[in-house]
This record gives sequence, C-alpha cells and structure tokens, in this order.
Amino acid sequence: MRIAVLGTGNVGKTIGSRLVELGHEVTMGSRSADHEGANEWAASAGDNAGVGTFADAASWGEIVFNCTSGAHTLDALGLAGADNLNGKVIVDVANPLDFSEGFPPSLSVKDTDSLAEQVQRAYPDARVVKTLNTMNCGIMVDPSKLDGGDHVVFVSGNDDAAKADVTALLRDFGWTADQIIDLGDISTARGTEMFLPLWLRIMRSRGNADFNIAIVG
Amino acid sequence: MRIAVLGTGNVGKTIGSRLVELGHEVTMGSRSADHEGANEWAASAGDNAGVGTFADAASWGEIVFNCTSGAHTLDALGLAGADNLNGKVIVDVANPLDFSEGFPPSLSVKDTDSLAEQVQRAYPDARVVKTLNTMNCGIMVDPSKLDGGDHVVFVSGNDDAAKADVTALLRDFGWTADQIIDLGDISTARGTEMFLPLWLRIMRSRGNADFNIAIVG
Repeated sequence: MRIAVLGTGNVGKTIGSRLVELGHEVTMGSRSADHEGANEWAASAGDNAGVGTFADAASWGEIVFNCTSGAHTLDALGLAGADNLNGKVIVDVANPLDFSEGFPPSLSVKDTDSLAEQVQRAYPDARVVKTLNTMNCGIMVDPSKLDGGDHVVFVSGNDDAAKADVTALLRDFGWTADQIIDLGDISTARGTEMFLPLWLRIMRSRGNADFNIAIVG
Repeated sequence: MRIAVLGTGNVGKTIGSRLVELGHEVTMGSRSADHEGANEWAASAGDNAGVGTFADAASWGEIVFNCTSGAHTLDALGLAGADNLNGKVIVDVANPLDFSEGFPPSLSVKDTDSLAEQVQRAYPDARVVKTLNTMNCGIMVDPSKLDGGDHVVFVSGNDDAAKADVTALLRDFGWTADQIIDLGDISTARGTEMFLPLWLRIMRSRGNADFNIAIVG
C-alpha cells in the first residue's frame, strides 16, 4: 500500500520505518521537499521510502498518517490540501500538547472538543481515525516490546470501514484483536487525548516511557 | 481512628462501610444533621457509624474523606469550615465532572488546574491527598475484586507525611505497595482527574464499571 507519513519527528520516523519493513511504500511529508531529517530517514529506511512536501505525500498516499506535533497538525494538513485528503483514511496519532510554558504541557484542545474532531471538521470528506496516541512510538509499532501482552490501544472514529482498515494495520504492527479497543465515534478521542497529562506524570514517576496501560477486569 | 466521610452517595457509603469494617469510627457528613440516606447507611453499617453535618463530621474526624460530587466539593468543605480542616489530611476522591449537559460530562476544572489544587488553595493549612478517583468505588476499597493484581491506584499531594498516612489506609483497603503509584505533588492530580473522560468511554465500550488500569512495562 502507498502510505503518506506526515511529520519528521520520532513518531513519523518510527511509524514510517515499520511500515516499510512491513512491505508498504512510504513517503514522508514535511514543509520542504528537501528536509534534512526526512532525507536521512529515507536513506536509512530502504528503497520503498521516499520524501516530499506534505502535498506530495498526501496526494500520492492511499492512507495518510498524521504524525505531526499537535500544535502544527492543522497547518500541516492545510498544506497537504483538502483535495489530497478527501475520501482518504487519516490516521491521527498527534496530541494537542502545548509545551510553550515548559513541563507539564497544557492541552490546546480539550474537554468538549479534541484535535481529532478539529481535523474531522476541517476535512469532512476525510475519514479520521484516532489511534496510537496514548503511548511511546516504539510501543506503537511493536507492542511485543512490553512483557504482559494485555496492554491496549484505543481506536476512535466515525467511519467503521476506516476503523477496520486501521485495525488491520494495527494487527500488522503486532497488536492482537483483544488488545484493540474501539471506543466509538471520533468524539471519544477527547478521552485518549486527555489521557496524556496522566501518561506524562506516570513517565516522570517511573523515569522512562517504556510502558503502556492495560485494562484489568 | 476517627474518620469523617463527607458525602452520602455510593462512594461515601462504600468507603464509610469499609472503614467501619476495618475498625475505624466513621461519621458521615452531609448538609443536614438528619439526612435520610446517611441515617440509613449508619443504621446498616454498625455501632461505629454515625452521622452529622459536614461541620460535625469534620470537627470530630482526625482524617477527612471528600466523597462529595466534584460540583459540590468546595461548597461542602466551606460548610465543614476551615477551622475543622486545618492541619488535617483531606483524602480527595472527587472528580470535577459536570453532567448538566448529559453524557459525556465536561470537566469544570482541567488542564492547568485541578479540583484537588482548588481544595489545597482554599485550605492551605489542610493536607490534601488526591487518590482513588480513577476507578469505581467497589474497587477502591477492595482491589482484590479484580483478577490480575497488577492494577494501580495513584496518589498526589504536597505533604509526604500525609501521603504516607493515606498510603497506610490504602494498604488496609488491600492495595499492595507495588500497586500504589506516588505521582508527585498535588498538581499531578490534573492527570488523574483528566483520566475520567477516558475511563467513562472505556466503561461505555465495555458496558460495565468493574475494571481498572494496570501499568505494563
């Protein structure tokens, strides 16, 4: 499959590399067609990895991963262009964290709205699925990294077929059916985005990000 | 120990009964000295269970459990009275959920503040410890109800001695040392309070509240 990965940070690189490893073609999109970090990633990720602008990647991709930082997501998707997003699944991995005042970050969207809903409203013909945003990127793409196979990933979205497509990709990453929890429509992303402040405090308390939550009961 | 339980809902009744069962004396506080629900609870909970106003309970208790609904917490503590709270541990179990618009509730405090911090600011000489607010009350007082002993309870507060006192009570409820996670100062309660929207969505998805989260990793 042709997959666009928007964003050149650790999340984009980690997801992009894993998708290439799984046999997909990946174009990493950024503001510039000649982004140093994206070029380095593509050089190391193999023949099926390419780079381009946000619009290049989105127009080419059959599925679009939003791996930009939450503060830049709407700008990046604007550069990708509505015509290049309409009808496509957008896998939204971003969190609306505002680090401008340091740690802990505040949430630029919360409570009665979410970044995922903002994206869905901005691109009503795209099929937004929020997932994977509740953990470190190394665990996103390889859940077997953690002992205890009962930890979970959440899925939120209005389009059941899009959620099925994303669930299939999650299964390819190594998530089992029991680990994937469909919370419901896209508004349920409010819950997973607002989990981040607790996630960050748990990380501080443990001293590392190599964890995830399980549901016991 | 003499323990005041403020609030006559399920959380107050469940915690009050468990504290009596553990050998403590408990006074359930409410707006009225003659509250029907409190009277019924006291009649069923045994000789060490009593009732009174918020002020009666708080002045008598050595420790104060805030089991009021978050929307009423500051009013209830105002009626309890600063003189009856100063120097005491307040175990804050409440969540600032606003159900006035139905489900899902919104959060009346969030992000850069929390109900726990509001209480600590309002009563700077009290020793506020936020805990137990991330689960159903049946699990709060009997964590062994859930298979899989690795699920967790969080503790937030500025006063280490107060957190140690509360941790001892949690141990009496059945929580093991490994299950109790000290997140840090009272501002970390922002994280546990903002977990509620996700908790509520997981509950909806499962169809029951008999669960808790574990940390895997």
